[in-house]
Amino acid sequence: MAADRIQPRTLKGFRDYLPEAMLPRERIVETARRVFRSYGFSPIDTPALEYLEILLGKGSEETDKQLYRFKDHGGREVGLRFDLTVPFARFAAQNIGQLGTPFKRYHIATVWRGENTQRGRYREFMQCDFDTIGTTGVAADVETLLVVGDLLVALEVGEFTIHVNHRGILVGLLEKLGLAENSAEVLRALDKLNKIGPDAVAEELSRVAGTSAADNQQLLALSTLRGTNDQMLAELDKLVTGNETGAAGVARLREILAAAAAALSPAALDRIRIEPSIARGLDYYTGLVLETTLNDLPEIGSVCSGGRYDNLAELYTKEHLPGIGASLGLDRLLSAMEELKLIAPVRTPADVFIPFFDASRLGDYLRLAAELRSAGLGVEVYPEPKKLGKQLQYADKRGFRVALVAGEQEFAASECQVKDLASSKSTTVALDAAALAAEIGRILAT
Amino acid sequence: MAADRIQPRTLKGFRDYLPEAMLPRERIVETARRVFRSYGFSPIDTPALEYLEILLGKGSEETDKQLYRFKDHGGREVGLRFDLTVPFARFAAQNIGQLGTPFKRYHIATVWRGENTQRGRYREFMQCDFDTIGTTGVAADVETLLVVGDLLVALEVGEFTIHVNHRGILVGLLEKLGLAENSAEVLRALDKLNKIGPDAVAEELSRVAGTSAADNQQLLALSTLRGTNDQMLAELDKLVTGNETGAAGVARLREILAAAAAALSPAALDRIRIEPSIARGLDYYTGLVLETTLNDLPEIGSVCSGGRYDNLAELYTKEHLPGIGASLGLDRLLSAMEELKLIAPVRTPADVFIPFFDASRLGDYLRLAAELRSAGLGVEVYPEPKKLGKQLQYADKRGFRVALVAGEQEFAASECQVKDLASSKSTTVALDAAALAAEIGRILAT
Repeated sequence: MAADRIQPRTLKGFRDYLPEAMLPRERIVETARRVFRSYGFSPIDTPALEYLEILLGKGSEETDKQLYRFKDHGGREVGLRFDLTVPFARFAAQNIGQLGTPFKRYHIATVWRGENTQRGRYREFMQCDFDTIGTTGVAADVETLLVVGDLLVALEVGEFTIHVNHRGILVGLLEKLGLAENSAEVLRALDKLNKIGPDAVAEELSRVAGTSAADNQQLLALSTLRGTNDQMLAELDKLVTGNETGAAGVARLREILAAAAAALSPAALDRIRIEPSIARGLDYYTGLVLETTLNDLPEIGSVCSGGRYDNLAELYTKEHLPGIGASLGLDRLLSAMEELKLIAPVRTPADVFIPFFDASRLGDYLRLAAELRSAGLGVEVYPEPKKLGKQLQYADKRGFRVALVAGEQEFAASECQVKDLASSKSTTVALDAAALAAEIGRILAT
Repeated sequence: MAADRIQPRTLKGFRDYLPEAMLPRERIVETARRVFRSYGFSPIDTPALEYLEILLGKGSEETDKQLYRFKDHGGREVGLRFDLTVPFARFAAQNIGQLGTPFKRYHIATVWRGENTQRGRYREFMQCDFDTIGTTGVAADVETLLVVGDLLVALEVGEFTIHVNHRGILVGLLEKLGLAENSAEVLRALDKLNKIGPDAVAEELSRVAGTSAADNQQLLALSTLRGTNDQMLAELDKLVTGNETGAAGVARLREILAAAAAALSPAALDRIRIEPSIARGLDYYTGLVLETTLNDLPEIGSVCSGGRYDNLAELYTKEHLPGIGASLGLDRLLSAMEELKLIAPVRTPADVFIPFFDASRLGDYLRLAAELRSAGLGVEVYPEPKKLGKQLQYADKRGFRVALVAGEQEFAASECQVKDLASSKSTTVALDAAALAAEIGRILAT
């Protein structure tokens, strides 16, 4: 056997999720699902494998190169999805007749990209998208902001800021400057402002779009605007004055913020801030665009981004499907939570540990555990009657919060030792599920 | 554009999950996750892609043939996982030092097999496994039965039966009959009893294992044993008498059932039944084996199956990892629930619909929705101020339960029409979140 043994290893750029990494990921995904559902977004799923022609040329040149592609058993050219947007466009084109519009969906699933791992990227990761399609209504724009707000609050990642802008404002300004034909290049360059700074952006603007120094100054001026949202709207009105696209963009942003103001508490509203330099690199955004940063860790960039687009699925259907959506950056959020020490080093989803102490009492331990589960607690019974010390070491390593120790003596007295594993203090409690649950609840609340 | 349009379609054997299919799937997965966690099972995840040598030859000849395999960008031979057991064995071998034993994990994830779709099988499906490894303790065996019981109760699929057996009993009987060397073939043949009947099994037994008619009679007699678990244990003791393996198997089964009896209510215990003909085809089971059938639909076969094995990861590590686990058959369970009419034709996760009735009141509708969400309700606001009839049609099609209709008149009177969409009856309620939540709760409870 030994000679034939295969070295257990994962592929480069892939990783196992051990419980301590998986538990926070599941918590985030469950929270996102709960928030999406509370707004009536429905779950969908699409195949991991698609016809290659569905995927190829729909992202960037880079994603084309990174595609995992091969021939399947039937000789078909297939590929693993590299994002959830292209499959959603294909899905919508194929099913919209049955789904009807407006249609609100979320999709939380794995995608694959043969990335260069030297950049610290993984080749398999999860995306978490939500979209409303089939409507241009301002309500969907506002709601997207409300979802992002509720989501970040529910995730308990501290204070955050939702930066909003409207692509029409940028486009309008470009039209005024006679740069409309280079808008994609200009928006991509502006989008790098936070990463590479104003000088490098100005250099890139002149290089890719032939802008003058005066143009660059006007464009970069956007990023230095500061003030309340009302002040910003007034400034933006001035900047785009005389240009229809720009004026419409400012008006729409004003309308979105007015509805948000009516719907939100002042504290929640205060998290939404106009940031005129936000462009979002992707060419298909046409209306509201948004990014979300954590106030305690803005340097990691946006943890939730998105925007409004004119037509989701034009490559696959003649049906016009405008929409708006955003995507939660799961991996970035997890890194941030780790850096902010918001992730407890826990390897078990259960709080309560019952040592298998008296070898003749297995049934009693199992029944006690079952009763506590009925009271809503997570309870693990150690599977072998090993020495108590060894079992408690196991409980410590896993991160259980409470141990219930009962041996012959305790069973005879109908009692149980409730041990707070953080403080190592024990209390004697009646061997009764309700009494034990109360004492456990007290410890968990500390 | 039109000329270049790509036909939107999924690959043969793959499918989109629309909300009406995805909502029940998510409910099952969430329920499973909750039950697993309540026992201290931790989530893990492994890559969808593995080195081909990890996957190849670890399932059957059939799974080898069905493997989606290709060369990645680095020229590595890789494959998509075809089950969660092989990746778990690789995972355990690689990480057990860090994880420690015993280790309890669940893994709910997608697997791929290039199946012949003419058999109605899909090429992409989800598996849902839980295992306890690193212990031979009887407690882990009992707990597996308790988890299956809690799971099926929580899934609300009606009454069910957990059929249990011990591989040692079958092996012991084979040893007594001098058929030990053919045990794999014999167990595989016996496992088909429910599918092909006793005559065909007898024929197969004689063909593959050279059994006599008398042997076949003894082997098939197992399947006709009936009685209480205690009566069955006594019968089985007689059958294997004089054989050590068999006697140990019966003794272990007795021990498992005794602990289950102490831990469970009589009704829950009554669901566990000894079924001596259950073999489970897979060679690696060595102890307790189990299958679960729905009492209202036994013919669809087992919806949750598993068993104890001696060594999970011997192909990858010298560490001896005994364990026990089971797998919930998600797709089979979903079919069953559909057949039993347990799945409501609902396309939205939210119960409450708010028509966007008065175009000037968007902020008010959004605030009302937010307040009801805080009260724990799922609420969707229609994104455009279309005609009310059209919006209510949308609500009907989606399967919302309640609509809250408020126009200028209602807002002026601080009132709201609460419409039960099933009965079409409306009630006038004060425009106050608590009062509305109470009335909505009343309707949802009907």
